[in-house]
Amino acid sequence: MNVAVLAHEKFPNAAKTAVGLLRYSDYEVEAVLDRDNAGKRVSDFLPDVQDAPIVAGMDDVPEVDALVIGIAPIGGGFDESWRSDVRTALERGTDLISGLHYFLEDDEEFAALAAENDCDIWDVRNPSDDLTVAQGVADQVDAEVVLTVGTDCSVGKMTVTCELLEAAEERGVDAGFIPTGQTGIMIDGWGNPIDRVISDFTAGAVEEMILERGDDYDYLFVEGQGSIVHPAYSAVTCGILHGSMADSLVLCHAADREAIHGYERVEIPPLQEYVDLYENLARPVHETEVVAGALNTHSIDDDAAARDAVAEFGDELGVPATDLVRFDADDVLEAIL
Amino acid sequence: MNVAVLAHEKFPNAAKTAVGLLRYSDYEVEAVLDRDNAGKRVSDFLPDVQDAPIVAGMDDVPEVDALVIGIAPIGGGFDESWRSDVRTALERGTDLISGLHYFLEDDEEFAALAAENDCDIWDVRNPSDDLTVAQGVADQVDAEVVLTVGTDCSVGKMTVTCELLEAAEERGVDAGFIPTGQTGIMIDGWGNPIDRVISDFTAGAVEEMILERGDDYDYLFVEGQGSIVHPAYSAVTCGILHGSMADSLVLCHAADREAIHGYERVEIPPLQEYVDLYENLARPVHETEVVAGALNTHSIDDDAAARDAVAEFGDELGVPATDLVRFDADDVLEAIL
Repeated sequence: MNVAVLAHEKFPNAAKTAVGLLRYSDYEVEAVLDRDNAGKRVSDFLPDVQDAPIVAGMDDVPEVDALVIGIAPIGGGFDESWRSDVRTALERGTDLISGLHYFLEDDEEFAALAAENDCDIWDVRNPSDDLTVAQGVADQVDAEVVLTVGTDCSVGKMTVTCELLEAAEERGVDAGFIPTGQTGIMIDGWGNPIDRVISDFTAGAVEEMILERGDDYDYLFVEGQGSIVHPAYSAVTCGILHGSMADSLVLCHAADREAIHGYERVEIPPLQEYVDLYENLARPVHETEVVAGALNTHSIDDDAAARDAVAEFGDELGVPATDLVRFDADDVLEAIL
Repeated sequence: MNVAVLAHEKFPNAAKTAVGLLRYSDYEVEAVLDRDNAGKRVSDFLPDVQDAPIVAGMDDVPEVDALVIGIAPIGGGFDESWRSDVRTALERGTDLISGLHYFLEDDEEFAALAAENDCDIWDVRNPSDDLTVAQGVADQVDAEVVLTVGTDCSVGKMTVTCELLEAAEERGVDAGFIPTGQTGIMIDGWGNPIDRVISDFTAGAVEEMILERGDDYDYLFVEGQGSIVHPAYSAVTCGILHGSMADSLVLCHAADREAIHGYERVEIPPLQEYVDLYENLARPVHETEVVAGALNTHSIDDDAAARDAVAEFGDELGVPATDLVRFDADDVLEAIL
């Protein structure tokens, strides 16, 4: 499927959905919309993902099957500065894929244009109606369940999950993906948007996916969300931890991150405190262990310095660690299998 | 307001909303509907709450302003065996108040009957549309924030919160209530149903209430939900803990409870483990402390044995503890103020 990805004023560093799709999805990205970077190319910023031109708006995009909203602002609202691009897409008969909390199919103008031009709108974050409370049985599936957990949002949990999945598949390991957020769901074409379900059903929505896929694979890699000490999103993190009944955890962190992003009053606690919190919180429901660490060294230019940071991070955790994007996933995968 | 309270087959032990209303609300309860106990009275089971006859159905209820659904089954569904009573109520022009996840106003038959007979339907668990993510600022209000936390569901967190509130008011302490569940909201006529909000907004929905009331009182008593080790509901508990940024915690437990209710595979961990979990999980966002314990001794007939159980519970926690319903709230209140 050919798509354009909207990421105005945010590409690449604040456009994690756009970057996730460029890196891991099967979509052919024909253009990225970012009015601040029009005229450049994706490869000017990210050499290791599929390349595409960056354009100012939909008028500069060739015919595509869908326009994907590739940014997810805090709160998940729709920015009115995007309206003309979405309108143009629908007028051209282009489908929409969006992971915003604001559902495009509920927007009167977009709904009318979609009907008129025979376009589909897939609001990825609109959860299924049949979710319910967890039964506490995710540990009864055949697969080993591996969950990525974080010190904060935007440290690379989805990326690490996808890298582990690819590395496992390359080794011939029978591994399945449990997507829990908009980008993962777009990549896999399937999944429950855990941050958008009714809070009572948070664990249940994860469990439902584990039960659906858990007997078809030897390993399931569950995309984590948020952080257990996040002032806004810890509920989601906690629900995924207990709902997945994970057998092992991979702790994800970003180098140089010292406070919770957007909540600078909340300092990042020492790493060992995270390990204790995740393990101690999980234990009464299902015993688990942090078996590996993943450090996002994007903020460090020099490879040698990045290796040092990874080594220090691994030493502090006492488990194998790496940057799975910059280096390779072998050691971390080995610790899991 | 005069009400009837539906609690078929569950009164009193599995009807915590009904019992909460009988004990703490300003509603005048004219009848409790429970087909298994028709002909008895509330006082046959509960000597210390307002009394009312127990009847088999709406046909035996005198004219009332509203029918309240007083039971909240796991999952929050509507039991079809209640339909004829709800239908009768609407046909008589009686309003409905319900805390189910299943919204009665979305039921076609009930909506039509309500329109026809000019009845209001208040689905207490239907959250406000304008909730959003927490900003992490609940600690900026003037009030001291006190949160009840539990070892499990149905151990008495709402009851303890209401008892503390009443005791504080009796002492002339300027104390406000932050209701987070259907019963508390019915009692106070206000509040966000935290277990029903979008999971990303769990902490934010609590924070919003703290900010609204926090400068009007010296103390806020926040109704806790679930338990931090509950296989299904821990997400809600975690969101309330971080969203409220509570200054002190009261740990609630039920005597003789050995496993999570309805999840018998999950053993109740040692009490000290709960203290550590709640305090360690809260600390990175806002430091807090378990300052008192509340033991529900309902399962113990003998008062002396109940006193022994309370003493043992307090010793194990190392903080003042009591059963606030059976004895009095003084020591626990003293530990908070």
